[in-house]
Amino acid sequence: MTQDDALAAAQPCAPAFDAAFRANLADLIAWRRDVRRFRTDPVPQPLLDRVLDLACLAPSVGNSQPWRFVRVDAPACRRAVKRNFERCNAEALSGQPQDRRTLYARLKLAGLDQAPVHLAVFCDEGTAQGHGLGARTMPEALHYSVVTAIHTLWIAARAEGLGVGWLSILEPTAIARDLDTPAAWRFVAYLCIGWPVEEHTDPELVRHQWQNRASDCRRVLQR
Amino acid sequence: MTQDDALAAAQPCAPAFDAAFRANLADLIAWRRDVRRFRTDPVPQPLLDRVLDLACLAPSVGNSQPWRFVRVDAPACRRAVKRNFERCNAEALSGQPQDRRTLYARLKLAGLDQAPVHLAVFCDEGTAQGHGLGARTMPEALHYSVVTAIHTLWIAARAEGLGVGWLSILEPTAIARDLDTPAAWRFVAYLCIGWPVEEHTDPELVRHQWQNRASDCRRVLQR
Repeated sequence: MTQDDALAAAQPCAPAFDAAFRANLADLIAWRRDVRRFRTDPVPQPLLDRVLDLACLAPSVGNSQPWRFVRVDAPACRRAVKRNFERCNAEALSGQPQDRRTLYARLKLAGLDQAPVHLAVFCDEGTAQGHGLGARTMPEALHYSVVTAIHTLWIAARAEGLGVGWLSILEPTAIARDLDTPAAWRFVAYLCIGWPVEEHTDPELVRHQWQNRASDCRRVLQR
Repeated sequence: MTQDDALAAAQPCAPAFDAAFRANLADLIAWRRDVRRFRTDPVPQPLLDRVLDLACLAPSVGNSQPWRFVRVDAPACRRAVKRNFERCNAEALSGQPQDRRTLYARLKLAGLDQAPVHLAVFCDEGTAQGHGLGARTMPEALHYSVVTAIHTLWIAARAEGLGVGWLSILEPTAIARDLDTPAAWRFVAYLCIGWPVEEHTDPELVRHQWQNRASDCRRVLQR
């Protein structure tokens, strides 16, 4: 290796992304979707590893990298998660106004039974990584960092043809207890991952008449 | 249009993403970076619109789409944000342990002076969109939805060659007051957007010795 080669290796050229890539990326973003209908075929471990490797390149406040992943396979743990969801979902149903209750009851809100991979994602609030930089006035920035990792995982998975469903109809402290995670870890998301049964560009909640796209969510206030 | 054409239009085929696209996507994720060194050239409005359109396709709890964007251009507003940052940053510096104070003081933590586009991003906690679905036991899911929109914006911007820097060293209630935003809006992030002066794969905080990549952040607990 010449000295120039060594320099080039040390400072690789930034890639330029062309219009064809951007068009595919726009498709990826449009077809990402929250998936709740999975096939039961297993997900190869190397594929899941690739997706997790990319997730760990997500931005994080102070470079704190506070994301923590728990793969949930044990039947007893899965049963506890499912009971948690069923309890929270029943409460949510009974809290619905009368005119939306039938609609709510018809929604499929989780893919817990079919999804081959269950991944609980936590934020390590006790991490020394990052030395607290950027999280003094906004401690929630630590949780937000975990969300950027989840979203990175989500789009990387979709690029592999995998679907991801984010479940938040859960009681977080019970999840942490049932999965016996460290005390400083705060529960952020429960992800079901697998091959989707069907593919759509419209969200499940639009297709099933729960909530249309907002017409004004793209408005930008000027100041 | 034949009947078949009409059906195809109603149910477009899901795109398949190939290995070349995935390799580019991995590059995009690796080169995303939090940018704090901007050129002052303006960002064309159609480009910014494209990026915001994609951001609004992000996932959101209950399809609530609670992201709210404020473009900050008025000199008085920008001055208020800068004073807010300087105050919070001075407090953060004085809160550092003695042995890290010099290092902290040398870090460039914002690109407020050069970045042509300033975008404050809020979460509308009062939105009726989504009818509360998924946010009963985890109300923070509403804020997390805004974070997925920010991260979508970030990677879409990077694919256009734009840099984004997320600033959290700010006092959130003062931002809301100075930008005179609706009472139900909670401040999530202040984004500086523009053309980066330099490009790196390593985070600024690694390059300037604040925090290396964690060796174990990719570990997955088994349950």
